[in-house]
Amino acid sequence: MQVAISSRDNLLIQTVSAVDELNKSSNLLFERLTEWYGMHFPEFKTPEPVKYVQGVLLFDRKNIDQAEIEAVFGIQAPNIIGRMKSTVGSDLSDDDMRLVRSLASQIQFMWKLRDEIEAYEAKIATELCPNMSYIAGPELAAKLVAQAGGLKRMATFPSSTIQVLGAEKALFKHLKSGSRPPKHGLIFQHALISKASRRARGKISRALAAKLTIACKADAMSHNFIAEKLKEQFETQAKRILAKDAASPEGSKPAQRPPGNQGAPQGQQGKPPWQKDSKPQ
Amino acid sequence: MQVAISSRDNLLIQTVSAVDELNKSSNLLFERLTEWYGMHFPEFKTPEPVKYVQGVLLFDRKNIDQAEIEAVFGIQAPNIIGRMKSTVGSDLSDDDMRLVRSLASQIQFMWKLRDEIEAYEAKIATELCPNMSYIAGPELAAKLVAQAGGLKRMATFPSSTIQVLGAEKALFKHLKSGSRPPKHGLIFQHALISKASRRARGKISRALAAKLTIACKADAMSHNFIAEKLKEQFETQAKRILAKDAASPEGSKPAQRPPGNQGAPQGQQGKPPWQKDSKPQ
Repeated sequence: MQVAISSRDNLLIQTVSAVDELNKSSNLLFERLTEWYGMHFPEFKTPEPVKYVQGVLLFDRKNIDQAEIEAVFGIQAPNIIGRMKSTVGSDLSDDDMRLVRSLASQIQFMWKLRDEIEAYEAKIATELCPNMSYIAGPELAAKLVAQAGGLKRMATFPSSTIQVLGAEKALFKHLKSGSRPPKHGLIFQHALISKASRRARGKISRALAAKLTIACKADAMSHNFIAEKLKEQFETQAKRILAKDAASPEGSKPAQRPPGNQGAPQGQQGKPPWQKDSKPQ
Repeated sequence: MQVAISSRDNLLIQTVSAVDELNKSSNLLFERLTEWYGMHFPEFKTPEPVKYVQGVLLFDRKNIDQAEIEAVFGIQAPNIIGRMKSTVGSDLSDDDMRLVRSLASQIQFMWKLRDEIEAYEAKIATELCPNMSYIAGPELAAKLVAQAGGLKRMATFPSSTIQVLGAEKALFKHLKSGSRPPKHGLIFQHALISKASRRARGKISRALAAKLTIACKADAMSHNFIAEKLKEQFETQAKRILAKDAASPEGSKPAQRPPGNQGAPQGQQGKPPWQKDSKPQ
């Protein structure tokens, strides 16, 4: 049983890393594609990489297939066809085109594989850590476990560590030089945190990390499913934090903060406690 | 005509970079594959990445296909099958295996595409710079042009620059801190240089760079094919250098060097001229 779990653990870490590396590689090759194909059709720009690759595979300057282009690009199609007809790009030989298109399909395959691995990663995460996956979503749960180096190991972490997991660089910079501490690591990817206002983020992060810490211990040890209650509690907390944040005016003084609150007053936020100039009375 | 050439130039740079980036990406993903598949079959090691990927695609622990394995691995096959039967690796589910194998095929596709682009790169190089390609081989010629940022630009470089093209880091370190100057950049990849003894390499590099400088000007400007003569001259020079190097004992003194020779005497090699302590009398 122990072996089986730790091997699922390791598998999760492999899939998270594989997704990461496929992203990195496909970005690198996509950049090359835009530069290479840009010699032929520099006016073609689109904010969506997926569409760009489709365009490279589809376009043929000598034999423009209007219907196909409309099927992919919709209302942008006439604009693109116009540009294609008046392009200043140089002609590419058939050999060139074949290689550029091979590169484009290569990138498509990589994206496809990445999506498959990502789906699988979510499946393992839901099996391995159902509580954390329920609260934070399986993708985020998988990334947290991978960053922590395994589920058992993560279950020994305090909430404050889980809160900044993935922000190690900022954390150690804070500890060394007294810069502002990070408010969130990977858990920033949670929609409630990334969409919150800058002032509320730290508080919501702390609330989420607290619930994830409990969920992680349940996943690693007791294997009970307690996430429904935890998620409800977290959402209530988040709602309260957001309501307060919306009510209080921008740039409120520390005195206006709720009493018995969490964290140091604003004036001292930048320094760790042992670097304070004097003790509070 | 000008436009046509500079666009071939740019194309060459694109292919060289694409090959580079495909190499980088496939290495990254290959490492991930060995780690991921290593959970299942850690005893499987082979020095050839190509064989490793074939193995991943081929092996099936529950249904060992002896004939197929022998076809790929030859005399190593019994050894591999023995290890497979006694492996300590954990079982992977069908889903796992499917994804690991997709990753393996992905890597195979990348290698295939890289080889195609490399062959194409050699073809363009032979067309664009026939002289350099004849002397140094099309792969090396392509890399030199890409590193120089174009053929016209490379034609303005002196021989000493072409000699260390690609070793910019070592060159600027030398200029800044007076460490030993690099003896060769990309041209080290030429078989006559990389196989020569350490002492002879610098001299052969200089000889090759001198011939390439002439060849580059011919490729960029006159478009005459003069490489046969240049190559002959270079090979004669290289033979002479190697013969002298083989004849003289290890660690010979500067005094034993041929008179009217090239470069500073050994004692001052480490410093650029303006850092000399005193002027030579």
